[in-house]
Amino acid sequence: MHSPSIQKLIEQFSRFPTVGPRTAARFVFYLLKLSKEEIGQLSESISSLGKKVKLCSFCFKPFEPFDTAQGKSIVCEICSDARRDKTTLCVIEKETDLETIEKTKKYRGLYFILGGTVSKLMKEDIEKLRIKELQERIENVKEIIIATNPTTEGEATALYLERLLKPLAIARGNPVRITRLGRGLPVGGELEYADEETLGSALDNRK
Amino acid sequence: MHSPSIQKLIEQFSRFPTVGPRTAARFVFYLLKLSKEEIGQLSESISSLGKKVKLCSFCFKPFEPFDTAQGKSIVCEICSDARRDKTTLCVIEKETDLETIEKTKKYRGLYFILGGTVSKLMKEDIEKLRIKELQERIENVKEIIIATNPTTEGEATALYLERLLKPLAIARGNPVRITRLGRGLPVGGELEYADEETLGSALDNRK
Amino acid sequence: MHSPSIQKLIEQFSRFPTVGPRTAARFVFYLLKLSKEEIGQLSESISSLGKKVKLCSFCFKPFEPFDTAQGKSIVCEICSDARRDKTTLCVIEKETDLETIEKTKKYRGLYFILGGTVSKLMKEDIEKLRIKELQERIENVKEIIIATNPTTEGEATALYLERLLKPLAIARGNPVRITRLGRGLPVGGELEYADEETLGSALDNRK
Amino acid sequence: MHSPSIQKLIEQFSRFPTVGPRTAARFVFYLLKLSKEEIGQLSESISSLGKKVKLCSFCFKPFEPFDTAQGKSIVCEICSDARRDKTTLCVIEKETDLETIEKTKKYRGLYFILGGTVSKLMKEDIEKLRIKELQERIENVKEIIIATNPTTEGEATALYLERLLKPLAIARGNPVRITRLGRGLPVGGELEYADEETLGSALDNRK
Repeated sequence: MHSPSIQKLIEQFSRFPTVGPRTAARFVFYLLKLSKEEIGQLSESISSLGKKVKLCSFCFKPFEPFDTAQGKSIVCEICSDARRDKTTLCVIEKETDLETIEKTKKYRGLYFILGGTVSKLMKEDIEKLRIKELQERIENVKEIIIATNPTTEGEATALYLERLLKPLAIARGNPVRITRLGRGLPVGGELEYADEETLGSALDNRK
Repeated sequence: MHSPSIQKLIEQFSRFPTVGPRTAARFVFYLLKLSKEEIGQLSESISSLGKKVKLCSFCFKPFEPFDTAQGKSIVCEICSDARRDKTTLCVIEKETDLETIEKTKKYRGLYFILGGTVSKLMKEDIEKLRIKELQERIENVKEIIIATNPTTEGEATALYLERLLKPLAIARGNPVRITRLGRGLPVGGELEYADEETLGSALDNRK
Repeated sequence: MHSPSIQKLIEQFSRFPTVGPRTAARFVFYLLKLSKEEIGQLSESISSLGKKVKLCSFCFKPFEPFDTAQGKSIVCEICSDARRDKTTLCVIEKETDLETIEKTKKYRGLYFILGGTVSKLMKEDIEKLRIKELQERIENVKEIIIATNPTTEGEATALYLERLLKPLAIARGNPVRITRLGRGLPVGGELEYADEETLGSALDNRK
Repeated sequence: MHSPSIQKLIEQFSRFPTVGPRTAARFVFYLLKLSKEEIGQLSESISSLGKKVKLCSFCFKPFEPFDTAQGKSIVCEICSDARRDKTTLCVIEKETDLETIEKTKKYRGLYFILGGTVSKLMKEDIEKLRIKELQERIENVKEIIIATNPTTEGEATALYLERLLKPLAIARGNPVRITRLGRGLPVGGELEYADEETLGSALDNRK
């Protein structure tokens, strides 16, 4: 019913995460009200994204390479920050988790973006994750914090990583400590609505 | 915390309707995973939108001008459809309402997109609507359906339009019938949760 | 884990509509904080309910019989109100729907509480409804408003009643008009979120 | 509009926690459909509640006194259980929190039901809590777990208790350890939606 170029853009926006056809249509009608300059700026921001932004060669965080004495940086601002603790590695599912953890200002180590989770330990699912790269990153690491989400998928992935990394660390004679984020009551939560496992952990972690 | 070009695009997406900074960030990370071709296509779709899509000179629907015997069309496919009833005009708030009504397949007249609603009858609010254009469209019209939403703003706007158009029609010696969408119980609704006005209308409109 | 008398009351409250074990427990803990007098009053209100409240012999509304010249009333205050229109009968699913319709102050006829709906036209479901009683009530009636909910069950029930009552009325030489509540947009609704059938009805019922 | 005895019971049910007038009406209509026996049983359960159930003289849990060698018990089944650890006391806001913690099967100490929380440290709010009784219970206790909810009110109350109990314990020469439930990510939670404090605690409590 829409014109072809509107319909095409609706379809492109519909592939964005959390966006359905109705929201996609609202996006297009919003764009139709913008000035030529605004449209041009948005289009330019999108097209230049791939040129300007690279993935950090250590942690896989998207970043804009900056000038260093050795030319353009290939690692991100976190990985190249001399004040960060290089012996602690926090393995996370995705890019936004990195920002979320940084905001707590409680973590001073490095990150590794795994690129997803595995729901069942299917070979094809595991192959989508950066497992090989992770194995190469743990050489000088003393603690690996597996910070996948405490969801079913995140737990399965954490378990898989633990089983994989522990013998590897032992084999290398490198006594890595593998930890997981603590469970407990979230701020604003209520005992009454907590599940038994969460409340049990809150009791264990009391202090 | 994000790189400048990521941060800029997050801000641009944050201005999209219903999109907050967190969703905007997810959009950017989604784009970073696309291929160069896909990014190029999206960027191109956005930049060409303004060039390809015009507003219909009658109803203000965004449309892609098509070839006619007299050159490129200046009215949309609905307004130029000979089978549509030119004596009925349905006044709607915004573009998406047109699609919604078309899907019912119950309406064969023309549309007019008002471009919004007025919450209070402030001069500056009214000036944003296409009031002058609407007055010019009612020449040969026998029925105007004011199909604004049954919200407070939509009702205020409907009332304003009714008061404006009725004397105009009388002055022109053109006995226009001005109607509103029927109120009643929606499909799947329950009497118990209906407000008194809706249920009263449902009783009045029984058949 | 609870004491037997607490546990028993939790189970009794859990059978109340919309109440689960957690809410039932909160009810019991609430009761434990009341004074002896308040507990006594509640207990008394419940035990006397069945003695004081009868079902109206015409419409099946629960009511407290009142004194009349002929002794205690057997019909409710609505059915015995001389100002109500005895030729219009509104068939509703349940007691609360009667109050909801009364609040609109738009209806002056009588009611008939059907006692439920049928989801599929199963014999055992239909037998739970007051079908036989309804058939006896339509003698002098000129309009039957079938005011079941516009849900799937309500619609199936309405269809069943229509098919049942129409031939009956014809057979009796009593030209009953059978109507249904009007469909349309509810107050506060938006076109964008209306389903096609509701919006189609709103167009049909425009005025 | 309802009969007086129905209206009265609706009002009584409306004072139950989480119950509004509409739900209260549904409760009454539910009761009207019960048999005389069922109504009698419910009424009896409510009226006998106060007679059968007492508050435990140690922890204030509602319980049904049972026979012991010394006559009827004055403490509940938990407080009189020889296998429970009498040196640990878990201070909770309300009765249901006790059941919630028991379900985890992780806690073997005693409880103390505080009877609420204080939002601001107003004298009249504090006087509603069982502060004096709590002070009397800590004589032989080695650890007090303050298990108020991690809400604003629960936190304020926990802080108040900590400040109150710490010097008291020191004065008595009884080195009580005062702890709080651990904070962290709940089961099924996601990093992305965790607040900074919760995530910070999850990092601190990693293991």
